[in-house]
Formats: sequence, structure tokens, C-alpha cells
Amino acid sequence: MLLGAIEAGGTKMVCAIGDENGNIFKTESYPTLSPKETIPSLVEFFKDSEIEVLGIACFGPIDLHKDSSTYGYITSTPKLAWQNYDMLGAFKELNVPLGFDSDVNGSVLGEVKYGIGRDVDSCLYLTVGTGVGAGIYLDGKLVHGMLHPEAGHILLARRSDDDYSGCCPFHSNCLESLASGSSIKGRYGVDGKSLKQDDKAWDLIAYYIAQALVNYTLTVSPQRIILGGGVMHQKQLLAMIRNYYKQFMNNYIQTKEVKDLDTYIVLQSLDDKQGVLGALALAYEAYKEESNG
Amino acid sequence: MLLGAIEAGGTKMVCAIGDENGNIFKTESYPTLSPKETIPSLVEFFKDSEIEVLGIACFGPIDLHKDSSTYGYITSTPKLAWQNYDMLGAFKELNVPLGFDSDVNGSVLGEVKYGIGRDVDSCLYLTVGTGVGAGIYLDGKLVHGMLHPEAGHILLARRSDDDYSGCCPFHSNCLESLASGSSIKGRYGVDGKSLKQDDKAWDLIAYYIAQALVNYTLTVSPQRIILGGGVMHQKQLLAMIRNYYKQFMNNYIQTKEVKDLDTYIVLQSLDDKQGVLGALALAYEAYKEESNG
Repeated sequence: MLLGAIEAGGTKMVCAIGDENGNIFKTESYPTLSPKETIPSLVEFFKDSEIEVLGIACFGPIDLHKDSSTYGYITSTPKLAWQNYDMLGAFKELNVPLGFDSDVNGSVLGEVKYGIGRDVDSCLYLTVGTGVGAGIYLDGKLVHGMLHPEAGHILLARRSDDDYSGCCPFHSNCLESLASGSSIKGRYGVDGKSLKQDDKAWDLIAYYIAQALVNYTLTVSPQRIILGGGVMHQKQLLAMIRNYYKQFMNNYIQTKEVKDLDTYIVLQSLDDKQGVLGALALAYEAYKEESNG
Repeated sequence: MLLGAIEAGGTKMVCAIGDENGNIFKTESYPTLSPKETIPSLVEFFKDSEIEVLGIACFGPIDLHKDSSTYGYITSTPKLAWQNYDMLGAFKELNVPLGFDSDVNGSVLGEVKYGIGRDVDSCLYLTVGTGVGAGIYLDGKLVHGMLHPEAGHILLARRSDDDYSGCCPFHSNCLESLASGSSIKGRYGVDGKSLKQDDKAWDLIAYYIAQALVNYTLTVSPQRIILGGGVMHQKQLLAMIRNYYKQFMNNYIQTKEVKDLDTYIVLQSLDDKQGVLGALALAYEAYKEESNG
């Protein structure tokens, strides 16, 4: 059985054809221009491909309420060309069932189905890149709620020696504002890649990420936290994050999971393919749902 | 059909007999002493009562994993007499199915089934009293995860004019540390009840509660936030919390729910009976589960 997958990101869109076991047989990447310029290539990729279902993990905010008249739309994104765009509708001509969720919910599902989240029922995936976002899988289901998690924007306590005004236009002290790739560039004038591994910048970034992770544990109680995104390519960060997490949590949560931070806070396990594999998993979920009724 | 309910709090335990529509026919309250002193009275209350099922909404932390050998236990509570106590086991002699969850998960379920949460699928209940705790109902289910939400302890940004060291032994700047009833007593030397309605204390408390609510919206995306507990008896707080929430969120989330804060952030609607009504709802859920398999 062939499944189609699209990881629709703000910079590029990755299409893939694979199976329900996470094998990918064909893949192609397209730059995210306008819908008119980008979408036809995506549709073309899947035409005559014999996929039986398509999963789309899409940048947001998006409408995930199946009873809404704008279900499947990208809504109030700052990318003007994509505002109020019927993303799901654009693929109806393929005549297959469609699965749809946020890019980060896709990633957490990818890790749960094919990666390091396989043994847990509740799991949070945080991507720290140009922006910051989180996907949440709780008690066996992706979290939607009113909209979907936007947990990259939670407000944090600023460290007293940090006077950077923040890079998020909405919140001077949210996680994205203080610890994203953009914040590194804003604060230090260079990309993270240009900083040395032992630059004191990383200690500050770890301080903020750990603070956010503590709040995620206390709010949604995931059994594992998985970190991805470009900033997390800095391998020295992980141990620093775990250290600050331990300090900030201060033994308040005493579960076996949190007592073993080496398996509680981990790096993504799918070689940065968690997004497209997540879209594949979304496709398979949609297929099963269709089959059941 | 008669249902039994226990709201097991750290100060008192409330027993009730009622029905699935939230009618309460008989209720009694007992001080929370040790299990040996308190539990027999509770069991006695329900003996010969003809209840068909019992729901318990219990202070925590508690073990909610049905496949765990300590399912239904109170675990690492600072109340020594109740540490590692088999709460659920104590009621097995009643020979009825048992529902079990945290006190605040009980409260959110009470509001969802019988109160101001009736029209939503996702809802967060925050109690601000001596301590602070949150129950979360997401996409039609109570949130458990690894443990259960402990969102009264999320870390916040301290306001620059607040030099109170905090009342939580674990975190100097968590919500409970900065905005609980205990923090008011610690910071001002008197109970909240003794402060005037226009005391500037309330502005600071609202500042912290609003900051936490913004983080809850961004993390779990509830369709409504319901506030209860003794501190929220200060009616002037609600408008102040909504104002700070609007300021901190800064239009980042644009849903119809968040655009109308008068219906998004509300007071509990069950006259402080949300806990025991929640336990009644837990009983009914357990009854339905039992009936279905």
C-alpha cells in the first residue's frame, strides 16, 4: 500500500511516497513561494502515483476543526500569500482521503510511530530553529484544543544578565523571542553556526529552553520530550539543557521518567525526517479512520 | 440510579450521593486527618446506600496508570500519613466500580458536565487557593500523561517591583509561589480576606495569574479557562486578570474564543461544588466504562 506525505514548511515543502512502516520510496523538495507557484508541482508529484491516501503536516496557524467551514485552511499566517488558503482543498483532485495537522504535530507523530517516541503514550516534540514550535501527543492522541499548541511562544523569566529585547514581534520574553535561531542572530549578530561550541551564548539558550521544558512537563506531563530543529544541531546544548532542567524542577516531579533525564529529554531520532515521516503517519491515520467508518 | 462521590482534599473530604444529572441528595464533610482516622467514616457514609458506582477526585500526586501496581495510590505527597496510601483500595469493600482522578481533574470534569464548560471540548480549570492547581480536559478527555498536570507550579517572570522570595519550597518563582493564598499571607503578613478590594496586592496577583493563563493557552489551547479557589472569591480580580492576559498575549492568538475574553476567562459556575460534582461525573464515567466492557 502506497501513502503520500507532504511536510509543508514555511521555507520548503517536502513530498514523499512511502508505506505505513515509514519506508520512503521517492521524495522531492520544493521552495515555498506562493500557493500558485508551489502547489501545482506538489499535486503533479502525486498524480499517477497510485497513493491511496495523503497526509499533510503544515505550517500554521491552521484550522483543524473538522466541522468548521475553513477546515484545512492556513489562517492568520504572516506569510500573506498563504493567508486564508485552502491547503487541504488544493489536493482534493487527487481523490484520496486526506490527513491534516500542524507541522510540529506531524513531527511528534513521526517520532511516536517510527522513532524515539515509540514506547510512550504521551510525548512533546519541540523544534528550535529560526522559529520555535511544539507538537504534543497526549494519552495516545495529537492535541488540538481550540487551535493547536503554540508553545514556542510561552512567556519565560528573563535571565538577569540578558538585556536582548527579543526577536518576536508579539512577546519580548517568549521562548521564540529569547532562544530561537533568530534570537541568536539578533543578540550576537551572527548565525548560531558561526559561534564556537563553548561560546557562553549556548548556556543562555539552554537556560531558556530548559525553563520552557519544565513548564511543559508541569502542564501536559509528557512521558518524553524530544528536541529537534537547527539550533539543536549544536550537540553541546543537550547536556546543558538537562542540567538547567534539573536545577529548575528542583525534584518537584518524582516520576521514574523525570528521574532519568538522559531518556526523558532527548534529541530527535529520525535524522530530521520526522516531519515528512509524520506526514506519512498522518496519512496512515486518515486511511484507518476512513476504513473504520 | 444512585452515584457516590468523594472530593478528597488536603483539608477536608466531602462525600455525596447523587445522580448522573448532578443532583445531590445527601452530603457530608469530614476533616482530613490520617487515613486510619478519616477513611472509615467515608466508607461508613456509603455503606447500605445503594450506590451503583463511586467516583473519587483526590489530592495528589496520585497514580493514574491503570496498568501500574500502585494505581489508585496517593504517592509522594508532603502529607506523611497519606504517602503511598492505597486510596482506591480503601473503597473496594463497597463492591462497586470505582472512578479515580485528581481533585482538579474532577473539578474541570464537573464544570464540563454540569457547569460553564458544557459547550466546549477543551477546557482548563485553575484553582487558586492556599495552593494552586490545574485540571485539563482536552479534545473530550481528561489529561493524564506521565503523571497528571501540576500546572500550578509553572515558572513565571517575576515583576520587577516584587521582591517576595516565594512560598513554594521547590520554586521561588512558580505560580503557586507568587500568587497563591499562602503567598499573599507570606508577602503581606495577612490573609487575602483582610486586604481591601482596591489593595495594590490584587494587581500583582492578577499579573501572575494572567501570565500563567497565557502560557496555558499557548501550550494546551483550551477553548475556555475556568477559575476557582478561595483567592478567586475576590471578584475584582477577574477583570484585572483579563486585562493583563490581553496585554501579555498581545493579539498573537486570533481565535474567536480569545477575542472574547469575557467568555474565555470565567469564574467557576458551580458554587464551589465543582469538586464533588466532578467526583460524581467521574463515577458516571466509570459506570459507562464498566457497562461498555
